Amino acid sequence: MTQFVDVSSMAHWIQRDGVENIIGGMAKYIEDDFKRWESFDKIPRVASHTPFGVIELMPTSDHEIYSFKYVNGHPSNPARGFQTVTAFGLLADVDNGYPVFLAEMTLLTALRTAAASALVAKYLARPNSKRMAMIGAGSQSEFQALGFRALLGIEDITIYDIEPASIEKFRRNMEPLGFNIRVAESVDDAVLDADIITTCTADKAQNTILSDHQVKPGVHLNAVGGDCPGKTELDGAILDRSTVFVEFPPQTRIEGEIQQKDEDFPVTEFWQVLTGAATGRSSDEEITLFDSVGFAISDFSALRYCSDATKDSDLQQFIDLVAEPEDPRDLFSLVKVNSPVG
Amino acid sequence: MTQFVDVSSMAHWIQRDGVENIIGGMAKYIEDDFKRWESFDKIPRVASHTPFGVIELMPTSDHEIYSFKYVNGHPSNPARGFQTVTAFGLLADVDNGYPVFLAEMTLLTALRTAAASALVAKYLARPNSKRMAMIGAGSQSEFQALGFRALLGIEDITIYDIEPASIEKFRRNMEPLGFNIRVAESVDDAVLDADIITTCTADKAQNTILSDHQVKPGVHLNAVGGDCPGKTELDGAILDRSTVFVEFPPQTRIEGEIQQKDEDFPVTEFWQVLTGAATGRSSDEEITLFDSVGFAISDFSALRYCSDATKDSDLQQFIDLVAEPEDPRDLFSLVKVNSPVG
Repeated sequence: MTQFVDVSSMAHWIQRDGVENIIGGMAKYIEDDFKRWESFDKIPRVASHTPFGVIELMPTSDHEIYSFKYVNGHPSNPARGFQTVTAFGLLADVDNGYPVFLAEMTLLTALRTAAASALVAKYLARPNSKRMAMIGAGSQSEFQALGFRALLGIEDITIYDIEPASIEKFRRNMEPLGFNIRVAESVDDAVLDADIITTCTADKAQNTILSDHQVKPGVHLNAVGGDCPGKTELDGAILDRSTVFVEFPPQTRIEGEIQQKDEDFPVTEFWQVLTGAATGRSSDEEITLFDSVGFAISDFSALRYCSDATKDSDLQQFIDLVAEPEDPRDLFSLVKVNSPVG
Repeated sequence: MTQFVDVSSMAHWIQRDGVENIIGGMAKYIEDDFKRWESFDKIPRVASHTPFGVIELMPTSDHEIYSFKYVNGHPSNPARGFQTVTAFGLLADVDNGYPVFLAEMTLLTALRTAAASALVAKYLARPNSKRMAMIGAGSQSEFQALGFRALLGIEDITIYDIEPASIEKFRRNMEPLGFNIRVAESVDDAVLDADIITTCTADKAQNTILSDHQVKPGVHLNAVGGDCPGKTELDGAILDRSTVFVEFPPQTRIEGEIQQKDEDFPVTEFWQVLTGAATGRSSDEEITLFDSVGFAISDFSALRYCSDATKDSDLQQFIDLVAEPEDPRDLFSLVKVNSPVG
């Protein structure tokens, strides 16, 4: 039988352990897995595009555990009552190929994206960064804020969104948790005294959510929303002034902000900062930019963390996903008329 | 909620409707989908290879429905008490990207592989073919036999396997169902008066299960087991004497018997036989060869058929795979402490 964490159990787990604790623990798993980056099979995710959105499969393997995530991205969904992003994922045993752990990943992806963003910022933002400007108050925004508090102690948030209802939702969710929230009137206003800027918008277009003049020296930019061909958020001139850090270059060149640039636009692979093979921030004036698109290894880490944290608890159900005939060569025994069926 | 057919329900469905009825119905779905081949997104399956086996993802979409299958292939599994192949799969709504139907596919893949084999043979084997030689009596063998009876009326089977226990299992399963079964002493003996030869063995090696002299003019060859890089069953000389029909050439050139041949080895895409764009068998002396590797569109058809056939019955459960916050922009509402959780 395959272990299964459904939406309700995932929500219970997050309520039980707390978003910040989970993001902190998950970030450690991501850091450990990123440090052994070279031991993983890696390919750009496999995307099926339509006019309405995209459906993607994100596989990876460290040759002991295989994982994949199914995830969609449909920017027009919220206006129709659906979520932009939903997901589920799986861990399998490479040794025999059997699925072992299935989980909803809409919530889990929100946690892992925040964990990856905050982990990268912990290494790249200026020490003593205090204020984060957030452009975009959608589904991912609360998780980002909690991730940055968990890993960097950020409590001062300036929020901006073109939809007042989204800002109000963000404030309603976050103020009771002790954040100091300032609502900005514009992007210019939002970035005024920001040490870190997070862009996380959903529109599928080559937008300029952030213009060049809005990014001051020394800022760390956490660019989350540009994650699909034809979907970017940043003025290209910002990239020229920044040191750009990415997950997996072959995927980011297709999907990230750097899709605006030539194939040889210089980037640093973030895992190399963790191992010491590459330099992170080198001065207080440098602009560091995490061109985040979300990579399969983070999902691998998130699934492993969730599986470990919920093991042997009633948060895991069992589902009957893998046929198990008594004689493995006799699959037909399961469907003979009058065969006992489990 | 996502509809779900687990192993037990799949087995109950197959017992309720019967293997041959299901293969007959599924073959019609495959035929319909193959006829509109050009309307599908198609890529070679995405494989993660290890020394023990392979794990693959097989996505496709007709721009209304998206499907993918997870499937492993581990030839050394049966000796350790596991199955060579296990699988599960999903249908999703392209319009909003939401998963709608999840199913075990170990059993379903056995049915779809048999349905595809028999459908191709119905078009390519000599009319009035009476006897099928089967080399390999593993998990897939009974389904192949029932598929060929369902679509071609074949009742005379000659079976050969290097493992006597597998032959005995095949005979035990099939004789009560009215087949005339002859057990061969060797491959030479097995193919003596065969109109159709099915090869379906699991060993991952460049084997010669069938030698050139064993294939007489006029035979239809249903080559099922050569389906992975480094895994073939046929003497290359057989390919030179045959007209070779394939599913999706970019995948078959990687995985099929034609991996033994140059990139420009001539093949016919089977869907074109169905639409009339290509010729099938042209004489009673021609050797027709279906170099079957299994393609995502057959799984798409199999999932659709299973979903339709089990709809509104207690064979479908519901699983809580997709988070559904009341406000789609407020995913965080699901994990706020003291939030109600479904």
